Amino acid sequence: MLGLMQGHQLTTSMLVEKLEGVFASSAVVTGPYQERRESTFAQVALRARKLAAGLDTLGVPVAARVATLGWNSQEHLELYFGVPSSARVLHTINHRLAPGDIEYIINDAQDDVIFIDRSLLDVLWPLAQRLPTVRHIVVIDDLPTVKIPQDPRIVNYEELLDGQEEVKSFEPLNERAAAALCYTSGTTGRPKGVLYDHRSIILHAMSHLFADSFALGHSDVVMPIVPMFHANAWGLPYAVALSGSSLVLPGRVSDPERLAEMMEQEQVTVSAAVTTVWRSLLPHLRGRELTSLRRLANGGGALPVELSREYLTTVGVPIVGTWGMTEASPTLTAARTALVNGQDPKDIDQRSLSAMCAPGYPNPLIKIRLARPDGTLAVHDGKETGELQVAGPTIASGYFGSCDGSESFTEDGWLRTGDVGVIDPDGCIHVVDRLKDLIKSGGEWIGSVELENAIMSHPDVLEAAVVGRPDNKWGERPVAFVVLRMNTSVSDAALRTHLGAKVAKWWIPEDIYFVDDIPKTPTGKISKKVLRDTKAWALTGSAR
Amino acid sequence: MLGLMQGHQLTTSMLVEKLEGVFASSAVVTGPYQERRESTFAQVALRARKLAAGLDTLGVPVAARVATLGWNSQEHLELYFGVPSSARVLHTINHRLAPGDIEYIINDAQDDVIFIDRSLLDVLWPLAQRLPTVRHIVVIDDLPTVKIPQDPRIVNYEELLDGQEEVKSFEPLNERAAAALCYTSGTTGRPKGVLYDHRSIILHAMSHLFADSFALGHSDVVMPIVPMFHANAWGLPYAVALSGSSLVLPGRVSDPERLAEMMEQEQVTVSAAVTTVWRSLLPHLRGRELTSLRRLANGGGALPVELSREYLTTVGVPIVGTWGMTEASPTLTAARTALVNGQDPKDIDQRSLSAMCAPGYPNPLIKIRLARPDGTLAVHDGKETGELQVAGPTIASGYFGSCDGSESFTEDGWLRTGDVGVIDPDGCIHVVDRLKDLIKSGGEWIGSVELENAIMSHPDVLEAAVVGRPDNKWGERPVAFVVLRMNTSVSDAALRTHLGAKVAKWWIPEDIYFVDDIPKTPTGKISKKVLRDTKAWALTGSAR
Ligand SMILES: Nc1ncnc2c1ncn2[C@@H]1O[C@H](COP(=O)(O)OP(=O)(O)OP(=O)(O)O)[C@@H](O)[C@H]1O
Ligand SMILES: Nc1ncnc2c1ncn2[C@@H]1O[C@H](COP(=O)(O)OP(=O)(O)OP(=O)(O)O)[C@@H](O)[C@H]1O
Ligand SMILES: [Mg+2]
Ligand SMILES: [Mg+2]
Repeated sequence: MLGLMQGHQLTTSMLVEKLEGVFASSAVVTGPYQERRESTFAQVALRARKLAAGLDTLGVPVAARVATLGWNSQEHLELYFGVPSSARVLHTINHRLAPGDIEYIINDAQDDVIFIDRSLLDVLWPLAQRLPTVRHIVVIDDLPTVKIPQDPRIVNYEELLDGQEEVKSFEPLNERAAAALCYTSGTTGRPKGVLYDHRSIILHAMSHLFADSFALGHSDVVMPIVPMFHANAWGLPYAVALSGSSLVLPGRVSDPERLAEMMEQEQVTVSAAVTTVWRSLLPHLRGRELTSLRRLANGGGALPVELSREYLTTVGVPIVGTWGMTEASPTLTAARTALVNGQDPKDIDQRSLSAMCAPGYPNPLIKIRLARPDGTLAVHDGKETGELQVAGPTIASGYFGSCDGSESFTEDGWLRTGDVGVIDPDGCIHVVDRLKDLIKSGGEWIGSVELENAIMSHPDVLEAAVVGRPDNKWGERPVAFVVLRMNTSVSDAALRTHLGAKVAKWWIPEDIYFVDDIPKTPTGKISKKVLRDTKAWALTGSAR
Repeated sequence: MLGLMQGHQLTTSMLVEKLEGVFASSAVVTGPYQERRESTFAQVALRARKLAAGLDTLGVPVAARVATLGWNSQEHLELYFGVPSSARVLHTINHRLAPGDIEYIINDAQDDVIFIDRSLLDVLWPLAQRLPTVRHIVVIDDLPTVKIPQDPRIVNYEELLDGQEEVKSFEPLNERAAAALCYTSGTTGRPKGVLYDHRSIILHAMSHLFADSFALGHSDVVMPIVPMFHANAWGLPYAVALSGSSLVLPGRVSDPERLAEMMEQEQVTVSAAVTTVWRSLLPHLRGRELTSLRRLANGGGALPVELSREYLTTVGVPIVGTWGMTEASPTLTAARTALVNGQDPKDIDQRSLSAMCAPGYPNPLIKIRLARPDGTLAVHDGKETGELQVAGPTIASGYFGSCDGSESFTEDGWLRTGDVGVIDPDGCIHVVDRLKDLIKSGGEWIGSVELENAIMSHPDVLEAAVVGRPDNKWGERPVAFVVLRMNTSVSDAALRTHLGAKVAKWWIPEDIYFVDDIPKTPTGKISKKVLRDTKAWALTGSAR
């Protein structure tokens, strides 16, 4: 027997109605700051409806992939709503990927149209002749100084919208229909396509309003620094359509000083980024008036407690942890900040702060389990490690396109995250390492992330990366790459002494290389693949 | 094209897994306070699984209605989870209804089993021979002094669970399957059956975690005073299974002093009740240590600002508004408290306080519109009134059982709430009156709720009710029933002077009757039906 409820479908068009309805006057600000543009949710909704009409004009079929190569901007936001609401699939592409990867992704997705910021044409143009499925290239004019190539496929974004009669009511869609496509970061191999349905987008967006997660509310001003090509900017652009929070989009800017300026000027309350960004931003936040800040969230990798502490001291709020992945819409866990909110920063002890830097507690819609190598379940005692496996309505069931990926799923359909973790008795998740980055030394595992955190707890260390180096005797031995803070110097011996007090003796790296820089992936993660594949220990010269 | 996401169904069995998983150690306390019992979510989940096995033993079929006549207690909570998770339908009955209504409801629902608190057997027994579909009556032993009748249908709850092997995994269910049945309060006529599906229960529960709504989090201690037979206690028992908040259930208690004592002893943070309860509770809260309180929510009727102010002064937090109805799971709107949280009570001005006593802003999953009598849409200017109509996945599409109810839905499937309201430009909802309670005087409408609020704004008035009395000249004229505070006296003339400054002259009641008491419905609402049907103005003697 079915219930007698309306069962309205959870689709992005529901969000468009919020944008133009109750939240019509919420603001969308686009940077860079010197070119600040302000608009409203109502405007975004109207233009999303015009965009949908434009896609009709271009003859873009239902379910066709509409790619974007863009910064975080109002136009990108219009695409976020207009494309899926009109039954097409929004395919956001990381423009920082290697050209080969971008080409692979566009062709794997069989994109029909590409929307691109004028400032990014350079990225696309060298490939433009090798994209057989792409019929149109729509240029968003964010930087008039960039030359637009002569090509019959090129359309101007504003011209496409101009004079369009907006689509007044979107065709009803099943919430399980495909809405968006994101490829994973490609940290461990080729990027893999994740095909979100409308349902997963809405349910995930709802979770950002939860008190124990981002707790987005109407009075918030949300600045996603995480790019809109990276797992839907963590779903924040969709979440604000449910909370009515204002949105601050940095636009064509990754210069940390400009970002810091925007954060201050717009009185941002919530922001989200990866560790690399937080680190580069910090010096530019000093001395600014940032009392509006309420929650700074880290994702995409481990969060060193020291970095969070520096934020706490500098801007009055700590950075807090999340754990997620493209396959999970992406947020799986979040730190609970209820215990420290409103507390005086200096009263927050190291233990509470560490707890908030951990990935935190599962999104209530998600199930998380810990699997031993033999497939049996590990216990949640805060000690036993295992592979973290996840299931729920916001989790992928497979990959789109040519990636087989069947090894990423268990027989009972759970996603194998490829992350190794432990789970505390109270449910708090800790990520120890990626399975592929674990170092096997003398038959025992060393967690590279844990070891990195131990190194970074030295006050003079800015950043550290640890990988396994093949070793005749032990199989593998850890070697560390360490970036020191400006104007400091630490000896190899001093660092070893520091580590001796933190980790088991056999965890202490075989060699420690002091370097100026650690190679990063296009999403700002430490690229251990590069460190290993290039045999960085050989390139780096001798350890000091 | 469908997305490639897992699309797990949103069902109550998902919640059971939370109870026994991440939230295993959250507490459930059951009163009355002198008999305080404490248990854990894990225990509740285990017993819900045993209960499911017990229902199998009793031969209760899939989709059968399992009725409850119970207080807010741990056992009732077990029924909340065990019944729908095992594919039966939980039918909670208001034991304060007139016997005729209870009989009607049980037979209309065709209940297969009734679970009843021993202390409530008196309510059921007079009807027990007129319930042809009821095969079993399961008694929860909350009060050993009550005699249990001899009847072959009687089973003891603990005996039913004892020795049961718990149902280890519930059969997968479609989220649109019926999960629970609640009848409306019967304020305007016969109670009407609302058949919730699993989906509506989960989506509604999620909304209680939203920052701008109840903002339930893990550190909360939630005490629903609103009965578990009234629209699922506003869905709070389901919401805590997503937030992990502890739950305080008053049990066999409606004595305000005992409730106040529990609130203090358990360090409650969030509570929910109707105005009548808030009013009776207030004197017993004075002088208690209640700094834990964070949000007190009112529902089921208008919230007078003066009452909220008294709470603000007495316990440090105001009561805040919600608007809802059984047909809507039930919460439709909630006040945003972000602006005043953490503020010193004396700094909260009357305007902010009024704003929080209004029904507030729509649950993000809900659409609300304002319809003119001719069906066209009214504007949201904070002035034009119209019928509030609502749509969304947590809203009924029809009624269960013999109630036709087609007049409660528009042609395009929206629920006609029967409430008249205005909508502010920023989306805030105000309820002016029920359509059925509006008073038509000389061809113009008078909102009885607005008029009551004006009367109650007099410092010596405790409570007021206004209804329309047939009038030869004007069609109808308002008459008021007023309860004064203890040891005060106000003259008719003084009250009229007070009103003169607040409402239009022709709104001033024809007669004002000073009474000791205003008739209430079984859910504690003012019964205007009784006032009108009994021609209370004639019974009440002369106006002072
Ligand atoms: N809080 C965290 N702590 C440690 N690692 C994290 C955290 N959050 C995310 N990660 C890492 O980031 C991964 C998800 O990143 P993303 O989906 O962007 O692609 P990727 O896994 O880096 O790339 P690919 O799957 O293509 O190799 C997680 O699987 C995990 O390894
Ligand atoms: N904040 C509020 N302000 C004014 N009235 C409210 C408010 N919240 C709820 N109500 C009233 O309560 C009604 C919902 O109550 P409920 O579902 O318990 O049954 P009922 O409408 O009283 O009974 P019935 O439908 O059987 O006549 C709403 O339709 C509205 O009239
Ligand atoms: Mg990955
Ligand atoms: Mg009603």
